[in-house]
Amino acid sequence: MTIIYAIDLLGTMFFAISGAMAANRKHIDIFGATFTGFVTAIGGGSLRDVFLNLRPVWVDDGNYLIAILIGVTISVVANNRLDRLARTLTFFDAIGIGFFCIVGVQKSLVNESSEIAAIILGMFSAVMGGVIRDTLMNETPLIFRKEIYATACLSGAILYVLLGAVGVDSTVNAFLSALIISCIRLVAVKFKLSLPVIGG
Amino acid sequence: MTIIYAIDLLGTMFFAISGAMAANRKHIDIFGATFTGFVTAIGGGSLRDVFLNLRPVWVDDGNYLIAILIGVTISVVANNRLDRLARTLTFFDAIGIGFFCIVGVQKSLVNESSEIAAIILGMFSAVMGGVIRDTLMNETPLIFRKEIYATACLSGAILYVLLGAVGVDSTVNAFLSALIISCIRLVAVKFKLSLPVIGG
Amino acid sequence: MTIIYAIDLLGTMFFAISGAMAANRKHIDIFGATFTGFVTAIGGGSLRDVFLNLRPVWVDDGNYLIAILIGVTISVVANNRLDRLARTLTFFDAIGIGFFCIVGVQKSLVNESSEIAAIILGMFSAVMGGVIRDTLMNETPLIFRKEIYATACLSGAILYVLLGAVGVDSTVNAFLSALIISCIRLVAVKFKLSLPVIGG
Repeated sequence: MTIIYAIDLLGTMFFAISGAMAANRKHIDIFGATFTGFVTAIGGGSLRDVFLNLRPVWVDDGNYLIAILIGVTISVVANNRLDRLARTLTFFDAIGIGFFCIVGVQKSLVNESSEIAAIILGMFSAVMGGVIRDTLMNETPLIFRKEIYATACLSGAILYVLLGAVGVDSTVNAFLSALIISCIRLVAVKFKLSLPVIGG
Repeated sequence: MTIIYAIDLLGTMFFAISGAMAANRKHIDIFGATFTGFVTAIGGGSLRDVFLNLRPVWVDDGNYLIAILIGVTISVVANNRLDRLARTLTFFDAIGIGFFCIVGVQKSLVNESSEIAAIILGMFSAVMGGVIRDTLMNETPLIFRKEIYATACLSGAILYVLLGAVGVDSTVNAFLSALIISCIRLVAVKFKLSLPVIGG
Repeated sequence: MTIIYAIDLLGTMFFAISGAMAANRKHIDIFGATFTGFVTAIGGGSLRDVFLNLRPVWVDDGNYLIAILIGVTISVVANNRLDRLARTLTFFDAIGIGFFCIVGVQKSLVNESSEIAAIILGMFSAVMGGVIRDTLMNETPLIFRKEIYATACLSGAILYVLLGAVGVDSTVNAFLSALIISCIRLVAVKFKLSLPVIGG
């Protein structure tokens, strides 16, 4: 329980860093960077919770907002250094989306969504923060341009539901499925894999 | 009941086709097309349900997501052929928005919204999927550029509320109002009618 | 109670005017202007209410939609004249965001959000309508470009929570905090103050 909670806060902080860095690159002021960091960090999970007719966690638990403020502060203080750490960030991002996606699937199933909706909502949890970030920055969302990203989430989410159906222990299942997502993502980055374009 | 349900699934599929085709034209990968088809299909209804403090239907009923997958598959398989079918698609789209709009008004009234809010929420059900699609594609929403579209929905929704107030049977009313929306839309396309611009 | 309600309706009308004017400047048709006015006016408060798992007020209370229609009508009738009134509009906008922000903080606290979330939700109430307006217009949101705006809201919201914690009477507190927001905003416009850019 507390480990999941700690990872969740940490993941929130990493997403906030990625959002604030996107704003910094666009030469947006400090507030804009904080705002973008915030929206990136809470966007996906909030959308999932709203669709499940729940309150987003950060509305009740201030720790998420503190994690975001720490993330934004890191991005401000270490801005130039972070750009040089792009590879490290990609690594943490791959870990983060795997984790967020599977936690999203679990939360949806616990709240009695259909299994196919849980897969979608898990994927949303992981990628929609970035979609909102890119839309705010007035850019075509990264998930439409980048190597396999949301597809990795989708694969892991489907795996989790399938393994759950055949009775695999849910903790083992969660770690395995999250790991698969991270691996697919890292392999895709390494070899610049992308999906085919239709009618291209 | 089952006829309404079948039309609703069919309409969802058509919206998914229109979303996926928009992504295909932008040379976005297969996942991006699926994602865009999905968002176009469920965007309007989900927004309405969230504002009514309900869960979107697709969260509980997996059939909607299957309808979307079928729609996306059709758009992938028949991509070039569909472009030649643009006129047929406009026809089905006109039928679809009439139906979605009136179903949206009914659902809002059943859930005790004010009548004026029901009109807005009906229109949202029909057009917001497209607005989100265009925003994701980084374009000015079609409803701001195209011949009378959302205005047709608004007119039909107002008609439905007025006829309801004078006691017209709700099934007759629904079919009549939806038909009016479809006709206004088709006439507007045929004669390229559009609303005046202010200060233009 | 009734004064708060009247100010709320008035603020909604002013936001609708600002949204419709933005659409007019883009030569969007009358429907598009109404739509943009509507989204600008209800966007921020609706997002706050959805995050609090409540129905937005306008779903139950038709008066808000009537206020919006009046605002849009004013913007259509007096379009050219309003452009010359830009300074007056800035003044009313500054009053409006102060008021909306503090009302948003109060509503969040009454609905038992954490205090730090109430600050964020108050700021959202005031600025997210404009963010959605700008995103729909396919522009980088104004809050990323303009002199201190959302930051003024944030400062006032923090002040409100702090003064509340030390026991200041809530009505006095509300007027004082809202006034501070309006003043910061007006001073920022007057002297073209903006926040520093990171890595700029």
